[in-house]
Amino acid sequence: MANKNGVQWSIRVGDGSLVVLEPEHKNRVMRLWDGLKGLVVKFAMKVWRFLKQAWDLGVDDPRKVFHCLKVGVALMVVSLFYYMRPLYDGVGGSAIWAVMTVVVVFEYTVGGTLYKCLNRICATFLAGFLALGIHWVAIHSGHRFEPYIMGISLFILASATTFSRFIPVVKARFDYGCTIFILTYSLVSVSGYRVEHLLSVAHERLSTIIIGTCLCIITSMLVFPVWAGMELHVLIPRNMDKLSKSLECCVADYFGDGDDESKKTLNGYKCVLNSKASEEAMANFARWEPAHGRFNFRHPWKNYLKVGASSRSCAYCIETLTSCLDSKNQVPESIKDHLSSACMNLSSSSSSVMKELAKIVSTMTRSATIDMAVQEMKNAVQELQNDLQSLPDLLIQPLDSQEESTTPNSPDKTELVQSEITVMPLMEVIPLVSFASLLMETASRIEESIVKAVEELADSAQFKQAEDEIKLKQNPTTSKIASEEV
Amino acid sequence: MANKNGVQWSIRVGDGSLVVLEPEHKNRVMRLWDGLKGLVVKFAMKVWRFLKQAWDLGVDDPRKVFHCLKVGVALMVVSLFYYMRPLYDGVGGSAIWAVMTVVVVFEYTVGGTLYKCLNRICATFLAGFLALGIHWVAIHSGHRFEPYIMGISLFILASATTFSRFIPVVKARFDYGCTIFILTYSLVSVSGYRVEHLLSVAHERLSTIIIGTCLCIITSMLVFPVWAGMELHVLIPRNMDKLSKSLECCVADYFGDGDDESKKTLNGYKCVLNSKASEEAMANFARWEPAHGRFNFRHPWKNYLKVGASSRSCAYCIETLTSCLDSKNQVPESIKDHLSSACMNLSSSSSSVMKELAKIVSTMTRSATIDMAVQEMKNAVQELQNDLQSLPDLLIQPLDSQEESTTPNSPDKTELVQSEITVMPLMEVIPLVSFASLLMETASRIEESIVKAVEELADSAQFKQAEDEIKLKQNPTTSKIASEEV
Repeated sequence: MANKNGVQWSIRVGDGSLVVLEPEHKNRVMRLWDGLKGLVVKFAMKVWRFLKQAWDLGVDDPRKVFHCLKVGVALMVVSLFYYMRPLYDGVGGSAIWAVMTVVVVFEYTVGGTLYKCLNRICATFLAGFLALGIHWVAIHSGHRFEPYIMGISLFILASATTFSRFIPVVKARFDYGCTIFILTYSLVSVSGYRVEHLLSVAHERLSTIIIGTCLCIITSMLVFPVWAGMELHVLIPRNMDKLSKSLECCVADYFGDGDDESKKTLNGYKCVLNSKASEEAMANFARWEPAHGRFNFRHPWKNYLKVGASSRSCAYCIETLTSCLDSKNQVPESIKDHLSSACMNLSSSSSSVMKELAKIVSTMTRSATIDMAVQEMKNAVQELQNDLQSLPDLLIQPLDSQEESTTPNSPDKTELVQSEITVMPLMEVIPLVSFASLLMETASRIEESIVKAVEELADSAQFKQAEDEIKLKQNPTTSKIASEEV
Repeated sequence: MANKNGVQWSIRVGDGSLVVLEPEHKNRVMRLWDGLKGLVVKFAMKVWRFLKQAWDLGVDDPRKVFHCLKVGVALMVVSLFYYMRPLYDGVGGSAIWAVMTVVVVFEYTVGGTLYKCLNRICATFLAGFLALGIHWVAIHSGHRFEPYIMGISLFILASATTFSRFIPVVKARFDYGCTIFILTYSLVSVSGYRVEHLLSVAHERLSTIIIGTCLCIITSMLVFPVWAGMELHVLIPRNMDKLSKSLECCVADYFGDGDDESKKTLNGYKCVLNSKASEEAMANFARWEPAHGRFNFRHPWKNYLKVGASSRSCAYCIETLTSCLDSKNQVPESIKDHLSSACMNLSSSSSSVMKELAKIVSTMTRSATIDMAVQEMKNAVQELQNDLQSLPDLLIQPLDSQEESTTPNSPDKTELVQSEITVMPLMEVIPLVSFASLLMETASRIEESIVKAVEELADSAQFKQAEDEIKLKQNPTTSKIASEEV
């Protein structure tokens, strides 16, 4: 049937009669189609966004792409054991363990890979020998007791090892080793009961694991290596730089110089707030790494964590400082102007101390100017305190002070007091006062916490002397003259 | 040779003569012995401390011990496949995969176990089918191309999957699945080239993995289950309680009531500062868990994270607040007394709001009194602001104010101004003022951030109405009378 609109939809209902579908039903079909189209578009958009995110990630840090290619290459190489007959005949069917090892052990950083490799090898050795030993005892105690001894030992060892993983020290250094220990013990003990040539099983497993781990270590260390220690070494000063920029930005914003572009810089401190977990993971991996670049085997990575922790404590302070920005408009401009230069001065000197500290850490060279910068920061604190001290004079404002202050001879005190005074409400000043005192707290945290932590790091990692200082020592007379000239 | 002291030590040197060892040498031996003894004692102490730590851990949370026993039991059960001949004949040598699955997949929380199980099963399925498909293509493109096709596909898939693990969403939900995908694909594709009965290999591996995962899921869900969702649900209000206690403690300490015992309570906020990682891990696991207790399958775990984040922002503020404790002695007692009651009041009302919020979250019941508590906190803020506002009167202290204030009629203003005034240095007050304003900032964060986050959680998780409110709705007249009586 067709009406004026062209096609007409009809449906045969239960009693056999045809019911013509009204436009409403057509609309429903259309709506279904639209909904479906919407879903497909939505899905496509999601996939597109995912791919975009992945692309950005790759562009942002090409080393991640290299890592993936490295994994692919390592897997290709290890599967050669299977593809090429001579090699295959050598290691036999257990070559599968080499493949597994590569897949499971290859990590982004060299330290991560080494951690897993060493854990895997040691745990496999240990568990293998233990299993063989207990198996020997079980065999010699008679056929009847054998499964019981093996089962009970498995139960006890598995439970104890699992429990040890809850202990923080074990968790940080040997978590993977614990898994492998249980795995190997159960595999060897269980197949020991079945397979008669147990020793050869253990030997094959070990040798293939060693092949796999060696391959991983070589690939990760020689082809575009990513050292966890180096990452940590770069991360810590970068975070300090971010803090210093945030601090400067925040104070500039408070006194009116902030623009929209600085919003991103201002929020730089946020990624320092939650950096603890990643810093600790990196330090944990770094301790497994051999000497590389400027780092010895026993480089004091723990001290980096201390610097990180003190930066974080500074970040908490800056976080509270930024929340003062909401109340910046409550403070009268006249009072703000009174403190503005001192605050700006303190923020710039604090952030230059922080930048200098970051430079010390990243160049691994002591700085000749850091003491001066800290002294400058202290002076800026003192200056701000002085300005705060003179605030009450502003608060107690004689009504005719404006005119009188223009006269060269300031009026004597009794005269000033006798003229009518107005006390500016303290409430309007409080936000500014607390902003200033938070700024001083930040400065004191930099001085007491970060500076000390960096000094400790410099001592324990034996940072180089600054070139200026070396010159000073070589040429005490000229330097003395130079310093007198200054 | 023997002298008066008993034994004498001698040594035969190069030219054959005997050199008697002087007491100094004996001392060296003794020192060596002492050093050795010291080492042994040190080692014993270390082991003892380790065991003590482990014992404390077990006593502190017996569920961790149960977890270890569960792992042991699951491993015992799965090794039965090996020990008992009939079962062994059923699944064959691949029973080893079931053992491996149990070791690798069993996690502390149900969510963690489910996450790993589902990831493992899905990834194995997907990779297995893909490997079979590509293997089929490879076979049909001729013997010469077969290894190339398999090798190149392995390279591409392994690289792409490894790269996808860097993407945060994938990392959070499918990290383990990615590893298993690469593992299975490489195992199947590599053995596909060798082993002729590939389908049966894939089938065996799948069935044993399913046996292993089922065993893990059953054990972890039925025997003393530890739900990640429940853990998160308990952790969030516990952290809020810690914050509220820290806040109260800090203010009490500032105004002189603190004792040494309160030090631990005061530092309670510290574990909130770095709770982000563990909260996120729990929320990630919780989303895999089925309905349990009072939680549905799609319980809004994300909202818990929001509450956690806002608690953390409050913790940053409290962290800065505690650093004010160092300067508490700089403030004159008279000024402190002026603000003490208002500050104590604000801290107690803020912390009672926080406690009430914690109660709402932990009981999953809306509170009828929370609005009142928030209002009380606002009033306390107002009160503190008023007290701050009257601070200048204290600062501008007429020298004879003490006597004059005792007279019933206060002197009129001009008289007061004309008497000599002393302005108390603002510097002494600043620490107190900034303490008070930090306290107000904390209160505003509680109000603006935590209260809102909890409300959102209550809405999306459909928390029950408070019993009082239900009564109110059922009995509007009586409640109206009651409220009028109040």
